[in-house]
Amino acid sequence: MRDLILAFDFGGTKVTAVTIQRTTLNDPTPSWLAKKRLFSPPGADANSDISMMVALGQELLGEERATAVGVSFGGPTDFAAGRVIRSDHVPGWENIPLQARLESVFETETQIDNDANCGALGEHRFGAGRGCRNLLYITISTGVGGGWILNGTPWRGINKMAGEIGHVVVDPQGLRCLCGKRGCVERYASGPYMAEDAREMLKTSSEKGQILREMKEITGETIATAAAQGDEIANHVLLRGAWALSIAIGNTANLMNIECFVLGGGVTKSGQRWWETVRRVARETALADMQFEIVAAELGDDAPLWGAVGLVE
Amino acid sequence: MRDLILAFDFGGTKVTAVTIQRTTLNDPTPSWLAKKRLFSPPGADANSDISMMVALGQELLGEERATAVGVSFGGPTDFAAGRVIRSDHVPGWENIPLQARLESVFETETQIDNDANCGALGEHRFGAGRGCRNLLYITISTGVGGGWILNGTPWRGINKMAGEIGHVVVDPQGLRCLCGKRGCVERYASGPYMAEDAREMLKTSSEKGQILREMKEITGETIATAAAQGDEIANHVLLRGAWALSIAIGNTANLMNIECFVLGGGVTKSGQRWWETVRRVARETALADMQFEIVAAELGDDAPLWGAVGLVE
Repeated sequence: MRDLILAFDFGGTKVTAVTIQRTTLNDPTPSWLAKKRLFSPPGADANSDISMMVALGQELLGEERATAVGVSFGGPTDFAAGRVIRSDHVPGWENIPLQARLESVFETETQIDNDANCGALGEHRFGAGRGCRNLLYITISTGVGGGWILNGTPWRGINKMAGEIGHVVVDPQGLRCLCGKRGCVERYASGPYMAEDAREMLKTSSEKGQILREMKEITGETIATAAAQGDEIANHVLLRGAWALSIAIGNTANLMNIECFVLGGGVTKSGQRWWETVRRVARETALADMQFEIVAAELGDDAPLWGAVGLVE
Repeated sequence: MRDLILAFDFGGTKVTAVTIQRTTLNDPTPSWLAKKRLFSPPGADANSDISMMVALGQELLGEERATAVGVSFGGPTDFAAGRVIRSDHVPGWENIPLQARLESVFETETQIDNDANCGALGEHRFGAGRGCRNLLYITISTGVGGGWILNGTPWRGINKMAGEIGHVVVDPQGLRCLCGKRGCVERYASGPYMAEDAREMLKTSSEKGQILREMKEITGETIATAAAQGDEIANHVLLRGAWALSIAIGNTANLMNIECFVLGGGVTKSGQRWWETVRRVARETALADMQFEIVAAELGDDAPLWGAVGLVE
């Protein structure tokens, strides 16, 4: 009988399941035995999503059984209690004992954690953070979020909310964020906010931004493309985002003196100038004796799945 | 035979030694058996300071022996190696194995750590942070420094430099700090910088600051006094310092989600408006769901000594 781990990544609109053999986890490049993704139908709620997870898991396992189940959940969770706190996308998830529900079906140890912590654990155990006992994993895409590994294990904080680098204020007189504060990292560094600001700037300048104007639509991705081609507005918005992020990274280095920051998410694919700015400004913001490196995540969208495996290995 | 702990606080220009009975440490209000302070003579170096520490310890112990020795050192230390890294005030301390030197004299286990970590441990174990598993201790006086307790033990960071909240940047376009960066917490919140800025403002304004002008000298302390009496310039400088500090506290809450910030040092005696500003701005800067409190340190200048005890209890 094979020793199988079953892992899920529930993202709000879709669920991905994988199986992996425990004995392969220390291979140089461990890989899934099977992987399948399903999208939630319109009108899905917590109950229907759990049924979908169960069905997907049972399909991947077939005649076999899992010896452990790990879940990355796209929303706040209470790791110790094994509960989902809520989903910001799907109704009915308030205070759901997902751990107990899955344990009763799969009849084995189950652990759940939020996607930021799972992403951090995944990169720490299987990705760019291998060998680092302490790291902050940061995703920069639609939003900006983070998860900690300290002394080799996730640091969740007393309300399970640690790692909220997206709402660290770097410019107290700056632009207003959806959270109500001014000058949050996310307000400058996330894809949608960069796009919003670029659109505003195009309206008020008729000369600059010619390359960006020719793009089909303005998104974090097309801003990166236009910036690479020399568009001034795209460059300004993109590097301002890099600047905001890296002030927060440098400050975090000063506070925590950890060795590694692992950066993932769509915005990190914005090219060399974005990365140069992040590394330079973070270095300038941290004290000279603080040693740290800033590296690109390696696991992409699979980081939370790998972390879900890490929860139960 | 009594089970005695000997503890030292070496501050650069003076050394304080205490003895305490181990069996009393869990009393409601444990207290020293003996305490004595000596000032370094002009021209002191590491060797003469160590001799002074040894003599002071032997004097306090008399015929008895210590079962453990703890040292708070006013400068960077390597806790694991038991070494002082350097002193910024006294020559000859570079890479001194203080732990081994004291162990050979007192013939018992010795631990050394820097004063920020010892202060944090002291307040955690014996002061305002009792019952908090996770806290950041911040001293706001001539400089602004900090020390962490995470999961009940000091968090030192990979270069033993964690807790540098004084050089967290809160206003990237702000005033230039001695460290070279702009807008550091220390640049606004420390006593000497507040005094420097108040003096500059008095020069350029002939109307405001009448109360402050009547003070014998302008220091962090007299600024607090003048502010309490309604002086506009003193108020502005004092509350700007509180603002800078609390942006960093709120951001730290967002990053680490710890339950407690313990604030000590002379500037924390600046009165109710200073505290109100710190608490209000930190609360506004942190996300609404982040729970934390900001409390006044209880052990005053003795916090590092209590932490030195905590290192070896």
